[in-house]
Amino acid sequence: MSKSPIKSPLSEADKEITGNALQATLVDLIDLSLIAKQAHWNVVGSNFRSAHLQLDELVNTARQYVDEVAERANAIGVSPNGKAKTVVESSGAPDYPDNWQSVESTVAAIVDILAKLIERLRARIDETDKSDLVTQDLLIEITRALEEAHWMWQAQQA
Amino acid sequence: MSKSPIKSPLSEADKEITGNALQATLVDLIDLSLIAKQAHWNVVGSNFRSAHLQLDELVNTARQYVDEVAERANAIGVSPNGKAKTVVESSGAPDYPDNWQSVESTVAAIVDILAKLIERLRARIDETDKSDLVTQDLLIEITRALEEAHWMWQAQQA
Amino acid sequence: MSKSPIKSPLSEADKEITGNALQATLVDLIDLSLIAKQAHWNVVGSNFRSAHLQLDELVNTARQYVDEVAERANAIGVSPNGKAKTVVESSGAPDYPDNWQSVESTVAAIVDILAKLIERLRARIDETDKSDLVTQDLLIEITRALEEAHWMWQAQQA
Amino acid sequence: MSKSPIKSPLSEADKEITGNALQATLVDLIDLSLIAKQAHWNVVGSNFRSAHLQLDELVNTARQYVDEVAERANAIGVSPNGKAKTVVESSGAPDYPDNWQSVESTVAAIVDILAKLIERLRARIDETDKSDLVTQDLLIEITRALEEAHWMWQAQQA
Amino acid sequence: MSKSPIKSPLSEADKEITGNALQATLVDLIDLSLIAKQAHWNVVGSNFRSAHLQLDELVNTARQYVDEVAERANAIGVSPNGKAKTVVESSGAPDYPDNWQSVESTVAAIVDILAKLIERLRARIDETDKSDLVTQDLLIEITRALEEAHWMWQAQQA
Amino acid sequence: MSKSPIKSPLSEADKEITGNALQATLVDLIDLSLIAKQAHWNVVGSNFRSAHLQLDELVNTARQYVDEVAERANAIGVSPNGKAKTVVESSGAPDYPDNWQSVESTVAAIVDILAKLIERLRARIDETDKSDLVTQDLLIEITRALEEAHWMWQAQQA
Amino acid sequence: MSKSPIKSPLSEADKEITGNALQATLVDLIDLSLIAKQAHWNVVGSNFRSAHLQLDELVNTARQYVDEVAERANAIGVSPNGKAKTVVESSGAPDYPDNWQSVESTVAAIVDILAKLIERLRARIDETDKSDLVTQDLLIEITRALEEAHWMWQAQQA
Amino acid sequence: MSKSPIKSPLSEADKEITGNALQATLVDLIDLSLIAKQAHWNVVGSNFRSAHLQLDELVNTARQYVDEVAERANAIGVSPNGKAKTVVESSGAPDYPDNWQSVESTVAAIVDILAKLIERLRARIDETDKSDLVTQDLLIEITRALEEAHWMWQAQQA
Amino acid sequence: MSKSPIKSPLSEADKEITGNALQATLVDLIDLSLIAKQAHWNVVGSNFRSAHLQLDELVNTARQYVDEVAERANAIGVSPNGKAKTVVESSGAPDYPDNWQSVESTVAAIVDILAKLIERLRARIDETDKSDLVTQDLLIEITRALEEAHWMWQAQQA
Amino acid sequence: MSKSPIKSPLSEADKEITGNALQATLVDLIDLSLIAKQAHWNVVGSNFRSAHLQLDELVNTARQYVDEVAERANAIGVSPNGKAKTVVESSGAPDYPDNWQSVESTVAAIVDILAKLIERLRARIDETDKSDLVTQDLLIEITRALEEAHWMWQAQQA
Amino acid sequence: MSKSPIKSPLSEADKEITGNALQATLVDLIDLSLIAKQAHWNVVGSNFRSAHLQLDELVNTARQYVDEVAERANAIGVSPNGKAKTVVESSGAPDYPDNWQSVESTVAAIVDILAKLIERLRARIDETDKSDLVTQDLLIEITRALEEAHWMWQAQQA
Amino acid sequence: MSKSPIKSPLSEADKEITGNALQATLVDLIDLSLIAKQAHWNVVGSNFRSAHLQLDELVNTARQYVDEVAERANAIGVSPNGKAKTVVESSGAPDYPDNWQSVESTVAAIVDILAKLIERLRARIDETDKSDLVTQDLLIEITRALEEAHWMWQAQQA
Repeated sequence: MSKSPIKSPLSEADKEITGNALQATLVDLIDLSLIAKQAHWNVVGSNFRSAHLQLDELVNTARQYVDEVAERANAIGVSPNGKAKTVVESSGAPDYPDNWQSVESTVAAIVDILAKLIERLRARIDETDKSDLVTQDLLIEITRALEEAHWMWQAQQA
Repeated sequence: MSKSPIKSPLSEADKEITGNALQATLVDLIDLSLIAKQAHWNVVGSNFRSAHLQLDELVNTARQYVDEVAERANAIGVSPNGKAKTVVESSGAPDYPDNWQSVESTVAAIVDILAKLIERLRARIDETDKSDLVTQDLLIEITRALEEAHWMWQAQQA
Repeated sequence: MSKSPIKSPLSEADKEITGNALQATLVDLIDLSLIAKQAHWNVVGSNFRSAHLQLDELVNTARQYVDEVAERANAIGVSPNGKAKTVVESSGAPDYPDNWQSVESTVAAIVDILAKLIERLRARIDETDKSDLVTQDLLIEITRALEEAHWMWQAQQA
Repeated sequence: MSKSPIKSPLSEADKEITGNALQATLVDLIDLSLIAKQAHWNVVGSNFRSAHLQLDELVNTARQYVDEVAERANAIGVSPNGKAKTVVESSGAPDYPDNWQSVESTVAAIVDILAKLIERLRARIDETDKSDLVTQDLLIEITRALEEAHWMWQAQQA
Repeated sequence: MSKSPIKSPLSEADKEITGNALQATLVDLIDLSLIAKQAHWNVVGSNFRSAHLQLDELVNTARQYVDEVAERANAIGVSPNGKAKTVVESSGAPDYPDNWQSVESTVAAIVDILAKLIERLRARIDETDKSDLVTQDLLIEITRALEEAHWMWQAQQA
Repeated sequence: MSKSPIKSPLSEADKEITGNALQATLVDLIDLSLIAKQAHWNVVGSNFRSAHLQLDELVNTARQYVDEVAERANAIGVSPNGKAKTVVESSGAPDYPDNWQSVESTVAAIVDILAKLIERLRARIDETDKSDLVTQDLLIEITRALEEAHWMWQAQQA
Repeated sequence: MSKSPIKSPLSEADKEITGNALQATLVDLIDLSLIAKQAHWNVVGSNFRSAHLQLDELVNTARQYVDEVAERANAIGVSPNGKAKTVVESSGAPDYPDNWQSVESTVAAIVDILAKLIERLRARIDETDKSDLVTQDLLIEITRALEEAHWMWQAQQA
Repeated sequence: MSKSPIKSPLSEADKEITGNALQATLVDLIDLSLIAKQAHWNVVGSNFRSAHLQLDELVNTARQYVDEVAERANAIGVSPNGKAKTVVESSGAPDYPDNWQSVESTVAAIVDILAKLIERLRARIDETDKSDLVTQDLLIEITRALEEAHWMWQAQQA
Repeated sequence: MSKSPIKSPLSEADKEITGNALQATLVDLIDLSLIAKQAHWNVVGSNFRSAHLQLDELVNTARQYVDEVAERANAIGVSPNGKAKTVVESSGAPDYPDNWQSVESTVAAIVDILAKLIERLRARIDETDKSDLVTQDLLIEITRALEEAHWMWQAQQA
Repeated sequence: MSKSPIKSPLSEADKEITGNALQATLVDLIDLSLIAKQAHWNVVGSNFRSAHLQLDELVNTARQYVDEVAERANAIGVSPNGKAKTVVESSGAPDYPDNWQSVESTVAAIVDILAKLIERLRARIDETDKSDLVTQDLLIEITRALEEAHWMWQAQQA
Repeated sequence: MSKSPIKSPLSEADKEITGNALQATLVDLIDLSLIAKQAHWNVVGSNFRSAHLQLDELVNTARQYVDEVAERANAIGVSPNGKAKTVVESSGAPDYPDNWQSVESTVAAIVDILAKLIERLRARIDETDKSDLVTQDLLIEITRALEEAHWMWQAQQA
Repeated sequence: MSKSPIKSPLSEADKEITGNALQATLVDLIDLSLIAKQAHWNVVGSNFRSAHLQLDELVNTARQYVDEVAERANAIGVSPNGKAKTVVESSGAPDYPDNWQSVESTVAAIVDILAKLIERLRARIDETDKSDLVTQDLLIEITRALEEAHWMWQAQQA
């Protein structure tokens, strides 16, 4: 059923731009949720527990927006794709190392990943300014949440 | 940090058998959680909403056991790996189709996936009988939950 | 007391444009809440219960925004009018049939009504872009909610 | 589908009497819920806030019984009709003024409306005494709730 | 201890009439709760889940009134009897088939059972009109609940 | 302000009969709440704790109906009077002994008090049958609650 | 059973002083709870609702301390007496008028009653300074609560 | 539909052994829930209330496992049968007497019934050790709950 | 540590504009929270309680946005400063009088303060339109909340 | 680390007196919590369940104050010691018998233990009157709670 | 309105001493709440998050007592003053540095501030011993809370 | 009452083996709960708070299983003994040092204690494999919980 059963409120051109922005955001956020869980389980060191808990909050933030983004894609008549293979092929997040990690390298990796995802989100806010204000509003909200998380993780490097 | 910072309560041999069973289960369940979300967003048809809601319950079941399995791996001194790439490389779940799906094909796909994952879990229950009763107990609990879900999805095909 | 006891933060011209957009949205949403209740009580057929429950969620969505829109009108110094007579005279929603309805015709009617109301809302988002960004933000939020509902109802027609 | 898909537990004659009583009550209560919301938004004056809150409680009371009345109509095989047009055509509530209102005129209008609706309800309690004791029981319960509200609003005029 | 340790507020004659009505209602409702559970477990078919959930609501309704009826019997000095054997011997509900059932036959069976129980309840409302108004009030309340459920199940046959 | 500020929905004669029934019930229930508290604090003996807890449930039952009765009096335009002096002068409850009491004498006293109050309530159900069905309905509900409590207290004497 | 079944941690003399203080406080607070309820039901006037709600908070405050005071009396081996007759005979609260009252006279009466009860409580704080510090602490806490309430009621007379 | 619409994860032989164990447990537990309710309503005597409450906890325990057992039967492809007639024909619980019972005879009867059901459960734990570890795990859990209840009821006979 | 340990997602110029807007908003809102508390404690007069409660809601609104604004400042690499001295030096709120105040002067002061703060916020919405859409979105949200509060306070002057 | 890392707000002499009082109270309360649990598990007899539940409340009371006392010790710069060995060496509670106990002997033992602990607490209230009013306040609060419990247990011996 | 509308329960002299103690405490606690928020936002470093959370608990403690102190001032007829200017002019807390701070310097500053405020509070406990025991009791409670917090912050310096 | 009032579902030999395993586990877990509280109060150092909170979770885990183990002992007819003296005489936990401890030495001590208790539990899982599968199931569950905690504490040493 590759033809959309959902009629879009947008023109074909706006739907394509907006749909691409949403699909890319979906994949980034699913990857973030998997990485943050991976980090949650594998962080070790003398004050690992604080990072362990904070990572689970990041998982929750990511998961909440994953759902809102997928629903928004549907709402404009675009099928969201969040399968593992799609995530591996198109996520913009830098790779996260295997095995246990110290608190320091965990913090550093999360800070880098968030910086990259925020940069990509800000570009999409610009792209959707003309194509769909409703989607732009959602992307602004996600950016605010990730930038707040970014501060919380950078603060640990001071 | 590939050397385990966690001292295992098991012998090296038992730890390897048990660790493999847990890592394989972890990957299967993460894939199940991603597939069920994908299906949740893409199911369409006259009574799609019932399936839509039931799929979210399946996501929750999968996510809950993902955490318990990863924590058990840690508890026996094995680093759990739940990254997207690892899921793509080693999940035992059959592929799920792209794009929107009718309720019927959604149900059929989920029934098949659950059947496959249950079969793999039952093999691991046998393998861990000698290596770690504590882990076996957890796998039995997961099998019970997935077999109950399996019934609920098959019932729709009657 | 037809002279406003509330001082507007907007210029007279902006207040008129914005006030009209809010009053029209108020009426549309009240009508939506009454229609969705009517449909909730009168839907029949083999899987009527799923539609029955989903209609009550639509009632709740409509009622929540009815309140926010009326409060926003007050905040810019415009008296909101949500009486039955006003709704009959100015609602933009197509008529909903009397008596019991099958699930199919219920779904079709709701999909049409939502499409019409969304189209009207998107026009108002454009109109308020110059007159009041705060009101525009609220209209964007309502549009997002109705477009999500629209997807959920269309999905049943696939 | 104007022929009832629901078999009534009542004789045809009792069903007509009872159905009329329920449909008339439904319309009165929907109108009450719309009027009370209108008053809630438009009341002003030095102690407007207490009335503002009390009006929302009245909305909730009205809405709760709207649902119970419509469900009872269905239960005896009568399709309930709660559309805006039906409300305008058959509600027994006196008109409520447009624009902002002082606390005093708000209280006076609500007291009058409640008095009228209670009078109509008491007549229906008599009518249903022979036709359906179950429906009569529901009408008695609604009357008790409205008469309690009536006291609370009159108390402000003392 | 077959002699009542509870002093009845009723005369001996009224107590016998009322007690019989309550004991018969008790048995009908226990049977309804067992049948609805049986149906809950054994319903299958493409939209079984909606019926599956709705049947559990019916179980809860039945169980709640089972307790209130038994307590009322005690309150008038009559020992309630809700044992399995008593249910088999005196329940007024038609038999429910063994093994899995399609949604359609499940709905049909539940509609028939409810119709029969409602008919019996309405007869008891008449019988207790002279013997005990307090008990009659409880029977009216149960009838209203079952008639509402009856509508919800019939609506699926439309 | 002895002239009623609340317009009654009843005729003067019905209002007097109904008002007397409500005022008498109010006083009985306030006294019951004070007596049950007194007993709650003063019961002693080997299994005093079970009675101690059950008495507090009786206090709650009494207090809940005290409020509903007073509100109903207001609703029909009668000022409720629940002052200590009024309770002493007109309560129908037998006296409760001073000082600590054994469980047995506590149970006996409560059983007697409840029997007396139920008898008085049943008389009022008859009196209000002509004067106000809405009030009668409330008195029936209170009687049911007190008769259920009566059973629970008598059961301890068996 | 007028001889105490509870062994007091205090000397006979201290027990008498402390017991008198507690019994007097118990009676004052029960009377306060009855008066506040009476006022709650009978207050009328243009902004009666705010007072109506505030009176119920006063009822709750009074009832909470009634229980704590009675329990403390028991703890020191004194049987608490909170029957209606005892309240009428020994309460220190000035009389509260019958029938409906305006907001102004309600406020005035409550302010007077609280002033009187606080004065009596402060005397008892002095009396128990030598006899029982534990009881004194409870009386201090009650005084603080009543003085805070006193401010809230006086503020309305400003 | 006597042929199973659910594919079993077990071999035909294991499914028969396991299915019999589950069906027998289902019937025992439904009977226990009905008996405990019967006892709950009919227990009388000086400290009946404690037993009255404890019996309702036993009802809840039984009901919870009734559902889990029926769902497990479905999960292995066996239709659960919990109708009143089936319970009467195959329950292993000794008969419970009619009419009111003293606390002592209630306790004695419940202790006997629990002892019998535990004995039957322990035999089924042995039978399922080879046929299905997942079902065995559920039976172990039920046995633990009933043995704990058994202690609580025996303790009263000491 | 005056050099920012947080890397800003904005250019230096945009960061300065946005940072100034956030710092100024932070100070205004902290002052609003202190003033509203001051008013909450010091308001007196015949219907002071309604204002007393409404002021605490204003405190909560202010406090909630204080936190969101400070976190946003951090997120763009600007240290928020909310010390008492900073508030005194840079708040834009008009002075609030010392000592107890009548309800009328309280309402008048709050209306003026809100008007001033809204005016300042609307200017910052314009300033941040080019510098940071994410911050602008937050300022729009705060403005909507304060304008709604403004209506509620002005309504009392009608 | 036997030298205190916490600076005391008290003089060295006051700290020693106060610290001794707190350490002794800590040990008494831990012992009480262990004894009450022991009694909770081992009480048997016809109405054992009421005592069984009441003992768990005593455990909760003891545990709550254990924490507050230990935190207060820390707050004045004294390390609290609550190890099993310390409890055995310095608790002031009389020994509690091994094995199951009848309700009567359980009640008697608890009454004795509470009497002893209260006596010791009252002595410490005197000792801390000069050394630290803040600690004295906490000891008064604990005494009040234990004396209330003492009444509840003595009441069963009446 | 500088003349007090609230009648004090204290003599003029006692009211002045007590009022001064309360006003000084009010200012200290408001400043503490602002400083703790400032620290909450500006703390950075490798384990900043633990301090970040702990600071918010300190804000809540301070805010809770701010309200209780202001209400107590009102209760004795003294207008509380908690405006920013008053805080700057009379707070006893040492200054807190601007800009981001390391965890170590944050902890050090908070420890110092708490030490200073506790010292001031203990002096006021002495001052109010003669003037008002009720106020003294509140100051003792605040001291206990701040001394407990003091321990928690000092513990981090060990 | 050293002869068991509870009839065991086990043979005498199995009861002895199982009873010993449960009693030993009971003592170990009570000691763990006391040690974890001791550590909770006495841990100090720059990130003590994270360990402080984590220790309280360990207390809760230990306390929960203490109750389940004691109840299981009762269920098989063995009196559980959890008195302080018994704990000192038979606990298998290594000694915990007196006075304040750094975070590092706290972590090290808890890791050692958990390792020892897990080793002892695993031996008991083997011992009960033949004597009682129900008890073995409980011991497996406890082992899983302690091994998970063990990982969390070891992770801090990496």
